[in-house]
Amino acid sequence: MASGHNGKIMETALHHVVVTGAAGFIGSHMVERLLALGVRVTGIDNLSTGKINFLGGVMKHPNFIFVLRDLYMENCDDIFHGVDFVFHFSANADVRFGVDQPRKDLEQNTIVTFNVLEAMRKNQVRKIAFSSTGSVYGEAKIFPTPEDAQFPVQTSLYAASKLACEGMIQAYCEGFDFQAWIFRFVSILGERYTHGHVIDFYRKLKNNSLVLDVLGDGTQRKSYLYIQDCISAQLLAVQKTDDAVNIFNLGVDDYCEVKESVAWICNELGVSPQINYAGGRNGWIGDNPFIYLDTKKISALGWAPLLTIKNSVIRTVRYLDANQWLFEGNP
Amino acid sequence: MASGHNGKIMETALHHVVVTGAAGFIGSHMVERLLALGVRVTGIDNLSTGKINFLGGVMKHPNFIFVLRDLYMENCDDIFHGVDFVFHFSANADVRFGVDQPRKDLEQNTIVTFNVLEAMRKNQVRKIAFSSTGSVYGEAKIFPTPEDAQFPVQTSLYAASKLACEGMIQAYCEGFDFQAWIFRFVSILGERYTHGHVIDFYRKLKNNSLVLDVLGDGTQRKSYLYIQDCISAQLLAVQKTDDAVNIFNLGVDDYCEVKESVAWICNELGVSPQINYAGGRNGWIGDNPFIYLDTKKISALGWAPLLTIKNSVIRTVRYLDANQWLFEGNP
Repeated sequence: MASGHNGKIMETALHHVVVTGAAGFIGSHMVERLLALGVRVTGIDNLSTGKINFLGGVMKHPNFIFVLRDLYMENCDDIFHGVDFVFHFSANADVRFGVDQPRKDLEQNTIVTFNVLEAMRKNQVRKIAFSSTGSVYGEAKIFPTPEDAQFPVQTSLYAASKLACEGMIQAYCEGFDFQAWIFRFVSILGERYTHGHVIDFYRKLKNNSLVLDVLGDGTQRKSYLYIQDCISAQLLAVQKTDDAVNIFNLGVDDYCEVKESVAWICNELGVSPQINYAGGRNGWIGDNPFIYLDTKKISALGWAPLLTIKNSVIRTVRYLDANQWLFEGNP
Repeated sequence: MASGHNGKIMETALHHVVVTGAAGFIGSHMVERLLALGVRVTGIDNLSTGKINFLGGVMKHPNFIFVLRDLYMENCDDIFHGVDFVFHFSANADVRFGVDQPRKDLEQNTIVTFNVLEAMRKNQVRKIAFSSTGSVYGEAKIFPTPEDAQFPVQTSLYAASKLACEGMIQAYCEGFDFQAWIFRFVSILGERYTHGHVIDFYRKLKNNSLVLDVLGDGTQRKSYLYIQDCISAQLLAVQKTDDAVNIFNLGVDDYCEVKESVAWICNELGVSPQINYAGGRNGWIGDNPFIYLDTKKISALGWAPLLTIKNSVIRTVRYLDANQWLFEGNP
């Protein structure tokens, strides 16, 4: 029992939860954890990047229903009927490539989030957890960057679309009495990780262990978080905070340079390639050369990550090694 | 000549300019001022809220072309061919009523702005001035509120959509070498003003001069800016600043209480109604009870407003009195 944001005593109800992007990296882990907590879960995914394999362990769970539906193209209002909470993960999740297909972030992030909010409103569902990104801070001026940092300037279409979602969700809290938990993540690593620098390097080194081309100059500083730590933080925040809008950075209180991460990956794979840095301080257009979030707010709730960045990277490499099916059909 | 944001010397080219929302309150004034400066202007408007009358003085100007087109529904790529600058005013411009039609801000602001950016990109047009709003600061904690205030929480769908536009524009600056001037306005008053509290009170008092119902408790503090001062500030900023992303608050260094504004309007109309305040600190859902922007940044360029808030209100009442056609067909 916690004091509600309207002053009344309320329970954070997690009886029947919708998870969007349920077959994705983070979504599928949330589905499993919620089911383990005894929560009834309806998962939505269009399987554009999600993988049905990720739900293999829960597909026959009596409290789980999977709906193959596209939140951008198809009406999903019916799915939210009788639900009390939504974890909204469905998104174009790759910060890179925005410049190759600028409409994708608008459609898959901004408009899909609007569709989710409207489906919730029509069904009187008013609690949402949203996966935003530490990239919304743009090129931050303070490190570690706190939640109330200076008004940012966006540097990628991905982050701009996530900021657009945050704003809409906040406006629904004000206008329609919604309650929101907004999580600004660093990059997440671990089991079911399917995009980002670790898989890129892994794939390259499996093709050629003698040479590795790396974007940027190798000194870009990034922070990472292990998937189970990410899920635990979200569940804790939802249970322990009760403002109308609850915003949390999620990350470890640390960062590494890209070249350190490269060394850990090479060591784990037992290879010693010649490493060629492309140069420049940014890895790609819109890349932030330094991401390091202040996590005092989530830590104050009693949360602490189980894995360091190094161990998260190593665990990710081992996961990829053990799951070669991920690379079948993926050039 | 000014030093360009890429280090090269460049001229801020205003040879052929597109003005979106050209038949609107602010857009039509910008069209006139640009034409007076010898600039070739193509104006776009769907006339959903814009009024062709506002362009009466320029419709036959040899340097002006008006295109009746809908930036949301219709492809407008052709209009941006050969253009060197875009003033983008087209928008759902009323901060109120977002909760009655939540899709409107998404479509008319966020998606239309994306369409404008894409039309520009396809035509290699890379300079844009965007009319944002001081409402993006939400319930600000610092007054007057500077451009680099704390990361805000949105309180209206209108402001959330403007913030979404700002983010996309900034990402285009990073990803596609665009250059942007983003103006965060207070409410604008003056000739061709067609929505907001002055016209609401004016209309009510013309119907019944004995009683006036006012939203909120009358102590909401707001800042206003005269239309010609708004246009001058934008033209100055575009000429005098040359960063990739240039963000300016636009307002006077002052504010008034709603009840003061009511008194000025009543005095100008020669009426003494009984005033009934609805109560509460907000006028409507998402209303910010205090808007007062720090305008040191634009002032440092040599800009100063010609009219005070009081004189802007009085001038607006006189404009409405002299333009009764505005009320024909408008219940």
